[in-house]
Amino acid sequence: MSNMNTSPLTIQAITELDQNDPLRHKRDAFALPAKTIYLDGNSLGALPKTAIQRAKTVVEDQWGTDLIASWNKHQWIDLPVRVGEKIAPLIGAQPGQVVCCDSISVNLFKLLSGALSLQAGRTKIVSQQDNFPTDLYMVQGLQSMLGADKCHLHLANEEDIEAALDESVAVLLLTQVNFRSGRIHDMQRLTELAHQQGILVIWDLAHSAGAIPVHLDQCNVDFAVGCGYKYLNGGPGAPAFIYIAKRLQSRFSQPISGWMGHSNPFAFDVDYQAGEGVTQCLAGTPAIISMSILDAALDVFSDVSMQQIRQKSIELTELFIRLFKQFNLDAALTLLSPAESIHRGSQIALCHPHAYAICQALIADKIIVDYRAPDVVRFGFTPLYTQYVDIYHTLCKLNEIINAESFLQAKFNKRAKVT
Amino acid sequence: MSNMNTSPLTIQAITELDQNDPLRHKRDAFALPAKTIYLDGNSLGALPKTAIQRAKTVVEDQWGTDLIASWNKHQWIDLPVRVGEKIAPLIGAQPGQVVCCDSISVNLFKLLSGALSLQAGRTKIVSQQDNFPTDLYMVQGLQSMLGADKCHLHLANEEDIEAALDESVAVLLLTQVNFRSGRIHDMQRLTELAHQQGILVIWDLAHSAGAIPVHLDQCNVDFAVGCGYKYLNGGPGAPAFIYIAKRLQSRFSQPISGWMGHSNPFAFDVDYQAGEGVTQCLAGTPAIISMSILDAALDVFSDVSMQQIRQKSIELTELFIRLFKQFNLDAALTLLSPAESIHRGSQIALCHPHAYAICQALIADKIIVDYRAPDVVRFGFTPLYTQYVDIYHTLCKLNEIINAESFLQAKFNKRAKVT
Repeated sequence: MSNMNTSPLTIQAITELDQNDPLRHKRDAFALPAKTIYLDGNSLGALPKTAIQRAKTVVEDQWGTDLIASWNKHQWIDLPVRVGEKIAPLIGAQPGQVVCCDSISVNLFKLLSGALSLQAGRTKIVSQQDNFPTDLYMVQGLQSMLGADKCHLHLANEEDIEAALDESVAVLLLTQVNFRSGRIHDMQRLTELAHQQGILVIWDLAHSAGAIPVHLDQCNVDFAVGCGYKYLNGGPGAPAFIYIAKRLQSRFSQPISGWMGHSNPFAFDVDYQAGEGVTQCLAGTPAIISMSILDAALDVFSDVSMQQIRQKSIELTELFIRLFKQFNLDAALTLLSPAESIHRGSQIALCHPHAYAICQALIADKIIVDYRAPDVVRFGFTPLYTQYVDIYHTLCKLNEIINAESFLQAKFNKRAKVT
Repeated sequence: MSNMNTSPLTIQAITELDQNDPLRHKRDAFALPAKTIYLDGNSLGALPKTAIQRAKTVVEDQWGTDLIASWNKHQWIDLPVRVGEKIAPLIGAQPGQVVCCDSISVNLFKLLSGALSLQAGRTKIVSQQDNFPTDLYMVQGLQSMLGADKCHLHLANEEDIEAALDESVAVLLLTQVNFRSGRIHDMQRLTELAHQQGILVIWDLAHSAGAIPVHLDQCNVDFAVGCGYKYLNGGPGAPAFIYIAKRLQSRFSQPISGWMGHSNPFAFDVDYQAGEGVTQCLAGTPAIISMSILDAALDVFSDVSMQQIRQKSIELTELFIRLFKQFNLDAALTLLSPAESIHRGSQIALCHPHAYAICQALIADKIIVDYRAPDVVRFGFTPLYTQYVDIYHTLCKLNEIINAESFLQAKFNKRAKVT
């Protein structure tokens, strides 16, 4: 792509990028809808073909035919650990530190409670003002339960986070890639700064797992959670995952101590005895069908590296920005995402007062993007199936919308929707 | 069945019971494995045929084709409420009090925390020594988090529960039908006794929802949880449900305050504002595929009443006990379940020191039952698909096992398994 920053890009040149794309074959692994440009894999990943067969197998053969015996015969009982270990290499975690379970919200509650109880005398949890709301809500829930003298949320703007890290802080809770802007935090630096002050760090990987290389072990991260249904393509509401660094596992404990986290669930002991390591984070009976589908979906990563994915992701977003400027769209829309690719996840956010109308117009033309209140159009790129030509067509359409008479009129009508 | 208590029952007479069974047609609604007698629907309900089609639809059409638009187009966003309202009439709840979400364990954590915070000055949670362990573990988790001065578990034997209800008790947590013995608690009486002492009551309906008529509203119950994958046939690890009586909803709040429980999730507010009523119990993004399958599975209840189901359930368990005696099996095995049907759920538990070996022998002959430590063989009956002849064949086989030479030998070998 080194020649891309010189002359205006043509559709021919962009088509060639797809032809030479080393990830080109991966698109066939997905069952994508016809005549649709899907730029919302950061909200719900597309359907991997492996998941179709697995859904049929888990429902008809395993549940239908083998019924209760499937817990052993098809190893449903180990599924949370097996799926966790499949996710682990994607997020830079050695074995024995990741399990698949529950949702990000519930998993954050486990980690926040557990981390706080390791930090005797400290009660402050620092997070970012524009973190994804559920992360903040979980701290607020914990605060309402324990009382503000035991737990209180301190919100900092992005640029004030480092200054907020002092010895009064128990836990730093951050999302690695901002859900709105796509800005990537420096995980290594922030984790290190926090540790210098004795702060434990929880990273939310919702928009990074499967999207960018993550190095949890290397960054010495304490805890993490992440999402199964975005870049991991596990299906709507796929179970989440949880990471606890090996060095903390023997000291850690968490209060949502369900029977699946017991060291021996089928002994039916009266007293809870936490299972070994991260398995103590399992709570109730897992949603086996949803988790099996995620398990199958993860196989699309088996023959690609996160470095390959990241390289194409950068090229996709760079192409987007180049065309954005080539079409002079920067006169009408503001690029919210970082201009430098090193700081940008696998998405582009553009701001416009009529962002909602722009989204509706794109969607009406089968270019699926997301609106994020109050003024953001969000374009997500999944290198496994997003094509370079998709970017071209998207920018052409965006240009058309912005310059359409109907849209210009709509600017004067606050509630208008271009359809 | 009035003639059943006189002369020995023949296979012919039992076959007639199936022919005259008003629920006979419901068996066709399930995809049951061939040549198998499945008596474990109280651990994992069998696969309703409606669920097969729905699994295909939600995966291939909704996720695969409509992708993110399905949240509105296929109303995924309302699924937890819609499924809750389908479960409501099965458990005697008027609309607006039930949602489908998470697991029983996680839901108990929400209710226990929320109920406790309504009971200022009271810290004791009473439960039953042989309640299902995860229920006790959730209290223990809460206790470990809040400290024993804020929350402590008091365990009572079944016969001591009433005596334990005094003004020091904050919450009574009971499972309506005991998972091991199948004994039914008197929900009306215990709830009333508890209320007389100002105690809030949480009922776990894991073994009663879909198995026996439940009258939450009529019994003035405060809170309940229940399971989607047993008698509701929602598939392995199907999401659970939660009930909060209308009168308590405005005062109740719970700490696992995820974004789906927010009054306006897509406003992405920084501050949590609980949704109305029971919807505040939603936390993270729901497992849409698993929940959709449960939604479809519930349709098998659309043309039957819980009274019909209960009547057949009683006849099945009465037949079991009658044949048990007819085969003189009461000389070798002890009936743990109540002898009177009014006190018995839709299962029979038999005790034997070699219960595990007996289970293995039954399973080897494709009669699927459950072993529950230390000495229980558990037979579950799902009137929607269990046949009277299934009971006959089961007792014949049990008789054969108990009297087999290999089994008699096994009695002298502690670890022997009859296969």
